[in-house]
Amino acid sequence: MPYRAPVEDILFTLEHVAGLGPALEAGKLGDLSADLVRAIVEEAGRFAGERVAPLLRAGDVHPSRLKDGVVTTPPGWRELYRDWCEGGWNALSGPVEYGGQGLPAMLSVVAQEMWNSGSMAFAVGPTLTIGAVEALAAHGSEALKATYLPKLVSGEWTGTMNLTEPQAGSDLGALKARAERQADGTYRIFGQKIFITYGEHDLTDNIIHLVLARLPDAPAGTRGISLFLVPKILVEADGSLGAHNDLRCAGLEHKLGLHGSPTCVMSYGDGEGAVGYLVGQENRGLACMFTMMNNARLMIGIQGVAVAEAAHQHALAYAQERRQGRAPGWTGEGMSPIVLHPDVKRMLATQKALTGAARALCYACAHALDMAHAAEGDDKVFWTERASLITPLAKAFSTDIGVEAASLGIQIHGGMGFIEETGAAQFLRDARIAPIYEGTNGIQAIDLVTRKLPLSSGRAWRVYLGELSADAHEARAINRPEFGRIGEAVADALRHAETAALWMEETAPRDPAAVLAVATPFLRLMSLAAGGGYLARGAVAAAKAGRDDAPARAALARFYAEHLLCETSALAHQVMTSSDAVATVDLALAM
Amino acid sequence: MPYRAPVEDILFTLEHVAGLGPALEAGKLGDLSADLVRAIVEEAGRFAGERVAPLLRAGDVHPSRLKDGVVTTPPGWRELYRDWCEGGWNALSGPVEYGGQGLPAMLSVVAQEMWNSGSMAFAVGPTLTIGAVEALAAHGSEALKATYLPKLVSGEWTGTMNLTEPQAGSDLGALKARAERQADGTYRIFGQKIFITYGEHDLTDNIIHLVLARLPDAPAGTRGISLFLVPKILVEADGSLGAHNDLRCAGLEHKLGLHGSPTCVMSYGDGEGAVGYLVGQENRGLACMFTMMNNARLMIGIQGVAVAEAAHQHALAYAQERRQGRAPGWTGEGMSPIVLHPDVKRMLATQKALTGAARALCYACAHALDMAHAAEGDDKVFWTERASLITPLAKAFSTDIGVEAASLGIQIHGGMGFIEETGAAQFLRDARIAPIYEGTNGIQAIDLVTRKLPLSSGRAWRVYLGELSADAHEARAINRPEFGRIGEAVADALRHAETAALWMEETAPRDPAAVLAVATPFLRLMSLAAGGGYLARGAVAAAKAGRDDAPARAALARFYAEHLLCETSALAHQVMTSSDAVATVDLALAM
Repeated sequence: MPYRAPVEDILFTLEHVAGLGPALEAGKLGDLSADLVRAIVEEAGRFAGERVAPLLRAGDVHPSRLKDGVVTTPPGWRELYRDWCEGGWNALSGPVEYGGQGLPAMLSVVAQEMWNSGSMAFAVGPTLTIGAVEALAAHGSEALKATYLPKLVSGEWTGTMNLTEPQAGSDLGALKARAERQADGTYRIFGQKIFITYGEHDLTDNIIHLVLARLPDAPAGTRGISLFLVPKILVEADGSLGAHNDLRCAGLEHKLGLHGSPTCVMSYGDGEGAVGYLVGQENRGLACMFTMMNNARLMIGIQGVAVAEAAHQHALAYAQERRQGRAPGWTGEGMSPIVLHPDVKRMLATQKALTGAARALCYACAHALDMAHAAEGDDKVFWTERASLITPLAKAFSTDIGVEAASLGIQIHGGMGFIEETGAAQFLRDARIAPIYEGTNGIQAIDLVTRKLPLSSGRAWRVYLGELSADAHEARAINRPEFGRIGEAVADALRHAETAALWMEETAPRDPAAVLAVATPFLRLMSLAAGGGYLARGAVAAAKAGRDDAPARAALARFYAEHLLCETSALAHQVMTSSDAVATVDLALAM
Repeated sequence: MPYRAPVEDILFTLEHVAGLGPALEAGKLGDLSADLVRAIVEEAGRFAGERVAPLLRAGDVHPSRLKDGVVTTPPGWRELYRDWCEGGWNALSGPVEYGGQGLPAMLSVVAQEMWNSGSMAFAVGPTLTIGAVEALAAHGSEALKATYLPKLVSGEWTGTMNLTEPQAGSDLGALKARAERQADGTYRIFGQKIFITYGEHDLTDNIIHLVLARLPDAPAGTRGISLFLVPKILVEADGSLGAHNDLRCAGLEHKLGLHGSPTCVMSYGDGEGAVGYLVGQENRGLACMFTMMNNARLMIGIQGVAVAEAAHQHALAYAQERRQGRAPGWTGEGMSPIVLHPDVKRMLATQKALTGAARALCYACAHALDMAHAAEGDDKVFWTERASLITPLAKAFSTDIGVEAASLGIQIHGGMGFIEETGAAQFLRDARIAPIYEGTNGIQAIDLVTRKLPLSSGRAWRVYLGELSADAHEARAINRPEFGRIGEAVADALRHAETAALWMEETAPRDPAAVLAVATPFLRLMSLAAGGGYLARGAVAAAKAGRDDAPARAALARFYAEHLLCETSALAHQVMTSSDAVATVDLALAM
């Protein structure tokens, strides 16, 4: 079954859950209107469903290939990329002064969701270009921006991020690529980078690499890293393409998933050095990278939502078609569709509810970025902190549930789920990278407990949980039978999150290792509870507006609250009582 | 890192946790001695580590291939299979009167664990032969047994199980393959079977298919299914190989994992019909299959344990080698091994603790089968029911944690986990089938709540939980600081399981759908709690014996009890309160 973008659910979540509605009304987003938002989401949804999704499988069975330094992407992808750029989709979020549409992050993240539901291997390339545009727009010189931004914004060229080296993954301080100053103000770059997404491909004439490297006199560690723009093909003064730079793709990784996406080993300076241009200041490269880190992490989070949605649609279609056994209450002839078996329904509902919660979390994160962009003064601080606080939740929780939903999708298919032609397995293989790249989910959890909980001395998380508690309260106050115990269960979950957060605050100063040992369950706890708040908010809004989908929203929020939120009491208990047990295990001890 | 069989842990679990020690002392297992058990486990472990495991990757990158009806297994597998049979390993559990060693199920399951840790794709073939031997030994005529059993026991020929058809997976009642009676007392078989593991291969000269089919006058549904022995090559009266039977491998599946294992579409009777011999009575084929179902399901459960163990060893070796960042308390030079980062350690400990719990559960299940075999009268009933009760736990929980441990293994590897050459991803791809085949885990959960809880009017599960509660009590009574709250946490978990089981008993008669909706979390609850009891039992036994590994066992049991058993309170809550929420979700409703 082909992917169909859930346009109505996306619009509803944007407007009634994640804050787009009020932001539009308050005029925070320029001349953007609800009609324009709908038009964009519908159009992007159509392109994702009709053009991107049909190439999903081709991108799996025909991996990108390297021959004589040339990378060939899967059949059909060149045309897809061309048409996608011509449709203006690459330019959606780019700065207006360089040809972009300057649309808010909320729309960018929605579009990314749909491209990634269509084909994560295809969509991950443009995601990197967006990151390069942001880094360059924020830190590049006027000359660099004038030369490179228009073509990166249009998609005529793509961008990459070159951070990782074999010995420097999560710990960028260990990186060794080196840069040498030249008399003309340029630099020469030497070294090897690995895991470079779309480091080489045949979609465009040029590729603009952003590369972290170290100057000869740089301090050790993360304070001695600089950021350089290193084009694959050197650009002449008149903007035309000149000589090939001294860089090459030395190999492609053979990966579990994302086969269509070329993951490159990049070699810089095999000869006299690759020509590079400094972005920002010397030794401040990591800071430049970090300015776009929130957004990049959110863009990975939405990949989790995207694959979860696609896997759910795929499994639901199968479960409605496939017949086995007789479900309780089945009065039809012969075998019943398996969707009617309670255990299968539970799995499908789990996929859908987790996807809805993670979607709301990601959109709310994008909303915070947009508000931070538009606001000033205290408001700007508030929204900047809100985005910072939610980012690790949006990245880690969404990518975890992406894997869970994809794995459930296989299970729902039974034996057919293990057969590659069915397509269910590809979702798991593709989704499995998202909890790893752009900061592993373990690192997100550490970021949450060590850097995000302390924001504004703990005010940021308190206000956030407080807002969501108000949603729980409203769900209770609405007092409708179809709401079941939504209000109570969400309120309980948020209390568990609060109690655990207080424990974190109290424990961090005296026992940092204890906090790190349970950071991952804490992140899950916060995310699950927040997701409950968002789904409750949506159910309340739909009910108050008397929408046709109000019963469905209440039922899904109820399933999430009564079935899935049970986990939060266990997580709180785990966070607050089990650090010692983690510490005392000795894995090296023979037994 | 190559797999090393955890011989000491296996022996300890067998003897001190799962009941082998007392059974040997009581002389329940014939002339088997602890020394012989050790010798067998050590020797099998050596073969698994030195001969099977090195071919793990070859079995992935060189899938079995079909050409002109001939299936070629991965390079090295023919020699491996030959040497494995020559070592007598195929004959381990076979009946003595047909050349087998007649060893108890406990040793069979231990050996299976090690072959599957070495290479699940290789080991799954012989598992099917064991099943065929059992079915034939229990239900075959003397003539069939005399002709086929000696060669199936030695491994000169292999066996298969042909159940599934495209429209008949979980619901075997829907199967359509047909059998026609012949004047000479044989039958002719017609039809297509799918998902036939090792249905065709080049390891042996003959393959003995056990095929479920329907006679022309058979009643509809599961009461009209008969079991037939259908050899690939017909066997002459003198035992020599004759003509090729009218059956062929029509295709191989392209699967997510287990690439080395040929999963065949089998076509019977394209011509005048495949010659088949009735096993057991007409229309009683499913009953014949069910006599070996417990054992077959246990053999799949142990695959979960096996892959979890292998994935853990693989991830631990990497985490001890790989250096990134500085863990809390690290005083060495430069970056610390990632195993010292609390979040990485938590993941490794989770793998190890879940593996240990599932191993104990599987061995205890095998023990019950052995005791049932040896016992008579009430004792036989007791042990038969015990085996029946634990089988769905052993199958579903172990295969679920196999997937979890393999996925954690990828996460521990970071970016390298997504690269196929690392080997971490293969464990996930291979493990993912185990929750599906031999009855999906959802079906195991349904079996548990509808057929196993009611055994002896609920006495079976009460006595089982009661035994484990005694272990919790002992862990508490031992009163040693390194035990932390093992006793309390395990007792709590068992109470949660009991409360939920009581709810199941009470609810099943009046609301079957409610029970089915939460059968899966209930199975997980029972299994997690039981695993806690087993690990506590082991920790107590090691402490009392003053063993060197006593501190390590206590620490691991403590981690399991204090960190992982938190989940049980949530599961109990989920079981007892969320069925309505599952029922009210309407997935077809647009929103």
